[in-house]
Amino acid sequence: MTAPLHEARPAAPGRALPDTQQGMRRRNLARVMHTVSAEGPLSRAAVASRIGLTRAAVSTLVDELIRTGLLEELGPERPGRVGRPGSALAVSGRGPAGIGAEIGVDHLAVCAVDLRGEVRARAIRHGTNRGRSPEPVAGELTDLVRQVVAEAEQEGLWPAGLAVAVPGLVARDARTVVRAPNLDWHDTDLGALLPADLPLIVDNEANFGGLAELWLGEGTPRDFLHVSAEIGIGAAVVVDGQLLRGTRGFAGELGHVPVRPDGPECACGGRGCLEQYAGEEAVLRAAGLASAEDRVAVLADHAAEGDETVRRALREAGEALGIALTGAVNLLDPESVVLGGALAGVGPWLLPSLRAELARRTAGPACPVSVSRLGSEGPLLGAAHAVVRGVLDDPAAVAERG
Amino acid sequence: MTAPLHEARPAAPGRALPDTQQGMRRRNLARVMHTVSAEGPLSRAAVASRIGLTRAAVSTLVDELIRTGLLEELGPERPGRVGRPGSALAVSGRGPAGIGAEIGVDHLAVCAVDLRGEVRARAIRHGTNRGRSPEPVAGELTDLVRQVVAEAEQEGLWPAGLAVAVPGLVARDARTVVRAPNLDWHDTDLGALLPADLPLIVDNEANFGGLAELWLGEGTPRDFLHVSAEIGIGAAVVVDGQLLRGTRGFAGELGHVPVRPDGPECACGGRGCLEQYAGEEAVLRAAGLASAEDRVAVLADHAAEGDETVRRALREAGEALGIALTGAVNLLDPESVVLGGALAGVGPWLLPSLRAELARRTAGPACPVSVSRLGSEGPLLGAAHAVVRGVLDDPAAVAERG
Repeated sequence: MTAPLHEARPAAPGRALPDTQQGMRRRNLARVMHTVSAEGPLSRAAVASRIGLTRAAVSTLVDELIRTGLLEELGPERPGRVGRPGSALAVSGRGPAGIGAEIGVDHLAVCAVDLRGEVRARAIRHGTNRGRSPEPVAGELTDLVRQVVAEAEQEGLWPAGLAVAVPGLVARDARTVVRAPNLDWHDTDLGALLPADLPLIVDNEANFGGLAELWLGEGTPRDFLHVSAEIGIGAAVVVDGQLLRGTRGFAGELGHVPVRPDGPECACGGRGCLEQYAGEEAVLRAAGLASAEDRVAVLADHAAEGDETVRRALREAGEALGIALTGAVNLLDPESVVLGGALAGVGPWLLPSLRAELARRTAGPACPVSVSRLGSEGPLLGAAHAVVRGVLDDPAAVAERG
Repeated sequence: MTAPLHEARPAAPGRALPDTQQGMRRRNLARVMHTVSAEGPLSRAAVASRIGLTRAAVSTLVDELIRTGLLEELGPERPGRVGRPGSALAVSGRGPAGIGAEIGVDHLAVCAVDLRGEVRARAIRHGTNRGRSPEPVAGELTDLVRQVVAEAEQEGLWPAGLAVAVPGLVARDARTVVRAPNLDWHDTDLGALLPADLPLIVDNEANFGGLAELWLGEGTPRDFLHVSAEIGIGAAVVVDGQLLRGTRGFAGELGHVPVRPDGPECACGGRGCLEQYAGEEAVLRAAGLASAEDRVAVLADHAAEGDETVRRALREAGEALGIALTGAVNLLDPESVVLGGALAGVGPWLLPSLRAELARRTAGPACPVSVSRLGSEGPLLGAAHAVVRGVLDDPAAVAERG
């Protein structure tokens, strides 16, 4: 049985750990790891001053983290400084790694990320998964995971957990895909189909994309809305650096926000949902283009060549996004909106009408909208980093397992 | 200068307190207070078993809380039980009280709530505040506060802080009213106009209404959306028992979610906002009635008498609420929606169309919608309880001040 790696879900360092001496030690181990991870290399004294503990207390914690292979010493700092030279500490480039995976409508991908945040191995398999049953897809994904883990092990890493991004709604058990319309999967327990020897987290691709933006984006605020527009349109709502998940885990269903309440019928039962105007296939239809493997590239090519029908279709998609985002911005008051996923590739033709709609519908300065630099890589990287964050958040748990 | 009582903002007990021995003591004092408040009267042994500390540790904490007047002993438990009789502990009915106030469009109200949650004094003044400048309104409110504080002091209480609910957007400094269209106030620093001797929190009335629902409602879940529909329509977004405030403190602006993007122009600059269909004045207009002091009572009377125009206006307001809430439910995935504020008084004529709209537009079982039992009392009670919660969350701070 695979235990869900709940620690790897975004949380303040060790917030859930009990308020005892033992819990305090675990939280302080997490503080040391996060500090060295964010600002290292650092001496023990520098770590102590940053987290407000004595140098002796930090030394004990650091010794434990070195012993379990999570930190390493880079050797004495360069001479010439005043006082006894300290040894700089860095997060280990060996030891635990996060294995991220993505089940896309058109591909499968897996990567291994070390504690330093570097991608150390990756594998990809192109080909549609639409309408395939979950078993063979999970089987192929397992093969890719084994391949990436073997590569990572050659470099002295070991897999601390597996996180899988899926294009659908995931239950709060972090393993059951409740509904993935573009794969035609319902109530699929991925936990039963993936390697049982790795702690598992399954989450919606928009959520992992949003977390990637939070953790890896440059200057990303702690309150933002990450829109992941592909065949479906999802969003990640990040509040004070935490993902808002909702009661059932379904928060962020931006694609089914009503944009024109009397508009065309949607598969969800509603009418005039955002996906009817700004989903990839709706845009292709409005642009008079046939569906293809590389839908967004086709749209971008036509738009760049000045195809007025395609440009109008993208402009109208931007308007629909602007109307739906006006509602979201009014409800959530985020610091910014980040457009990620495949449709980010047609950002130049979406953004002007999107921004105009948002500006004219909101009082005061409009919420800034930008395009993610991570693009379609976001969900895969977010998944791998979710495992890495889990290690930083509770290094003691990993040391016990490693 | 009035210090904002940030402790009184909703937070897990003492979450923000530092992770030191001293911080641990303060958090444990909060745990004892919350436990006795929620489940008391309780013996020291019962408190110890509930919070997982030793009886000796709890006795030390309890002694401190009795000494500072936050807990009291009810005398020995009734004989006949096995073992030495313990003395039952209860939250004190004297000591600190929360002063709640409300600046409504048509009234001012103030109340004092003790640590047990009982209203011990109240005062109200009817009359419109629309278009009046903030100074005289704050002056009258101050008179009411002084009157309620004097009454509370006669009963052995002292004011731990003042919380004021306003019908507008409040900055995150918890004292500046950025925009209150129905009062015609802009960038009003209430902190400079209200008694400087009381720690102050100013917040939006929908937020305090939502907190009242969370703290005082029966069986209220930890994730819900509280809709406060009056002249304006606001919402409180409660996630895992915490209010979602947004970057600027403006989250929950449900009234300006676009319902029909090409609909009538709204003062906010948008078109077809929810307020154009479901705000009190829009409904009165659609019902062919003139605006009156007691708008909702007028609507309820006509609807009860079978006035078909009024019923249709309310049915259409329910539809508009249903469309806007479909978007909100898709984004937030709350466990339920609670309809509060004045429009709750016409719930029977709003709810059927609201629920039908929500059900047909969302896949799976629709989010349950209910009417608040607190009605228009919510914001005032929520304000007073916010101060009380601040005391329970960090009793040490209050003991130092008291």
